[in-house]
Amino acid sequence: PRKHRIAVIPGDGIGKETTPEGLRVLDAAARRFGFELELKHYDWSCETYAQTGKMMPDDGLDQLRDSDSVFLGAVGWPGVPDHVSLWGLLIPIRRGFDQYVSLRPCKLLPGSKSPLANRGPEDIDFYVVRENTEGEYSSIGGRMFPGTDREFVSQQSVLTRIGCDRIMKYAFELAMTRKRKKVTSATKSNGITFTMPYWDERFAEMATNYPEVTTDQFHIDILCAHFVQHPDWFDVVVGSNLFGDILSDLGPAVAGSIGIAASANINPEKAYPSMFEPVHGSAPDIAGKWIANPIGQIWSGAMMLEHLGEKAAADAIVQTIERLLAEGGPRTRDMGGQAGTVDVGKAIAEAV
Amino acid sequence: PRKHRIAVIPGDGIGKETTPEGLRVLDAAARRFGFELELKHYDWSCETYAQTGKMMPDDGLDQLRDSDSVFLGAVGWPGVPDHVSLWGLLIPIRRGFDQYVSLRPCKLLPGSKSPLANRGPEDIDFYVVRENTEGEYSSIGGRMFPGTDREFVSQQSVLTRIGCDRIMKYAFELAMTRKRKKVTSATKSNGITFTMPYWDERFAEMATNYPEVTTDQFHIDILCAHFVQHPDWFDVVVGSNLFGDILSDLGPAVAGSIGIAASANINPEKAYPSMFEPVHGSAPDIAGKWIANPIGQIWSGAMMLEHLGEKAAADAIVQTIERLLAEGGPRTRDMGGQAGTVDVGKAIAEAV
Ligand SMILES: CC(C)[C@H](C(=O)O)[C@@H](O)C(=O)O
Ligand SMILES: CC(C)[C@H](C(=O)O)[C@@H](O)C(=O)O
Repeated sequence: PRKHRIAVIPGDGIGKETTPEGLRVLDAAARRFGFELELKHYDWSCETYAQTGKMMPDDGLDQLRDSDSVFLGAVGWPGVPDHVSLWGLLIPIRRGFDQYVSLRPCKLLPGSKSPLANRGPEDIDFYVVRENTEGEYSSIGGRMFPGTDREFVSQQSVLTRIGCDRIMKYAFELAMTRKRKKVTSATKSNGITFTMPYWDERFAEMATNYPEVTTDQFHIDILCAHFVQHPDWFDVVVGSNLFGDILSDLGPAVAGSIGIAASANINPEKAYPSMFEPVHGSAPDIAGKWIANPIGQIWSGAMMLEHLGEKAAADAIVQTIERLLAEGGPRTRDMGGQAGTVDVGKAIAEAV
Repeated sequence: PRKHRIAVIPGDGIGKETTPEGLRVLDAAARRFGFELELKHYDWSCETYAQTGKMMPDDGLDQLRDSDSVFLGAVGWPGVPDHVSLWGLLIPIRRGFDQYVSLRPCKLLPGSKSPLANRGPEDIDFYVVRENTEGEYSSIGGRMFPGTDREFVSQQSVLTRIGCDRIMKYAFELAMTRKRKKVTSATKSNGITFTMPYWDERFAEMATNYPEVTTDQFHIDILCAHFVQHPDWFDVVVGSNLFGDILSDLGPAVAGSIGIAASANINPEKAYPSMFEPVHGSAPDIAGKWIANPIGQIWSGAMMLEHLGEKAAADAIVQTIERLLAEGGPRTRDMGGQAGTVDVGKAIAEAV
């Protein structure tokens, strides 16, 4: 049978609790759809950092390089600064493997509750396509005149032609596979006047290759407002690293699914492994209680299967999640239920 | 009687229709509260740009310098690029007069409808304090290798100690005047690792001066989500130029008042005139029909009076707006009514 090699990094906090449930469902899907998963486990985390002084070994990326995908839980723990935990594990994988697409579905699932009045599943169903390697998250910057009144810091945003074109191409190709075939660009060219006008330029240029796709663009300020007022306007939304980050939290928030949102860090050319992780973090407040909602992790697993060419299995998982929610299957506390992490994972695995 | 000199710039589109209504209400307040307004009108706009090639004369700032405040409508019109209209009029005033505070109330007004389910006026009542002169809106940047595959653009974000400290001080002082005394900082120090950690540093430092004020901070992505899920958490929110821009559109959007939101560009030391303008733009789609909602302009007028020391008059205007909305006074179409711009202005002026 087809075989996929998966590197599993549970990471910190509830990542350790949700990853096993993700694997449980992946395993069920493998048996039903006739493929094999070869798992390798890595304990890289803030805990290993406390012991070894490193979030991952120096040859970490090399250890992962042979796998087809990385399945990640959550990274970060109180006491370990972000520039150590995130920049020692999460970001190096995204960048080292040129996972330049961050793909995040914003979907109102049946049975989950949007904070918006009068919005149902038919109103919120779009993707945020986020550039994942450059832009505002740059490594050029510094501080001058430290400790004086003249002190200042500066950091460069960088947008390259290659970086813009490939993320926009991905967005347009994704739109071509969808019914509405619409791409919205997030910009701020009226305020950020060197980088963002270039973004607009490349977007207009890419659009000429896709005459069937409808396009529009909004400045990020009013675009955030439209996410709240008119979530039904959107189909595929493409944004820079920062704007995509913002929109891919706001989108799930308006859909009422921020606790269960999934995300994929993709290298579309498959030159390197891609990485799949829930949007939620390690949640120190509830870690260790086994009450975390595993749906974001399981949904991320479905995105992984789709990337690995197992579309039927991916669809089956997403549909099962939707069906169990709609039919009132077991729910964790965040969704108003009493079930534990494992209960939800088992219910979904069995139904798959 | 006390006299205040006001420079009036209606600008473009509906700005020409809402400014007179703002003045009508200001005039009513002046008569009732016993002060005088000396108005000077300026026709600077995209129209004068078409005739003269300039959005404002070369000595524009000098012409405004003697006034106590600038009362602005809206700037921008299709066909005139933003870098001409905004950067030729709006931004030079903000920066030239060191209006380093952009203050924007986010308030659910009675009778206006939030897109959120089950939220009333008691749930949404906070201020966004936006840094208005530096940060992401910088004038340092450029393009390299144009027209080739190696093409890239870059732009520097700059945060200065002076810039951070004075905006944060303003936010803390504002919080001290309020019941909840809470300041929330918008950051992204986990992703934007040169500038934003400095922002956090200055915030922590400033907080030590205000032991009575409660503080918290969120990364901008999850903060946007919290605006939707928990708008009741916020009292005063302080952010950089870009983050403040985003939050001050999102806040009014969740409050259902984006069409009527007000804003103040303030130089707290009164070394220069401050400027008051509605958050909405020139709205080319409805300009000329006299159906635009003048409440944002009128509310901005109230903020201007407060800045000029006419607090009683300012409060009277805001209370009148709230009362007329609650009691079902005349409304424009965007609020579900049939009234014209002038009807609403007159109703508020009379009631004041
Ligand atoms: C027009 C634009 C440059 C401006 C800004 O971003 O400052 C506007 O969005 C605002 O918020 O006043
Ligand atoms: C943890 C942080 C650096 C990260 C990001 O901003 O990329 C997170 O917010 C995300 O969206 O995956």
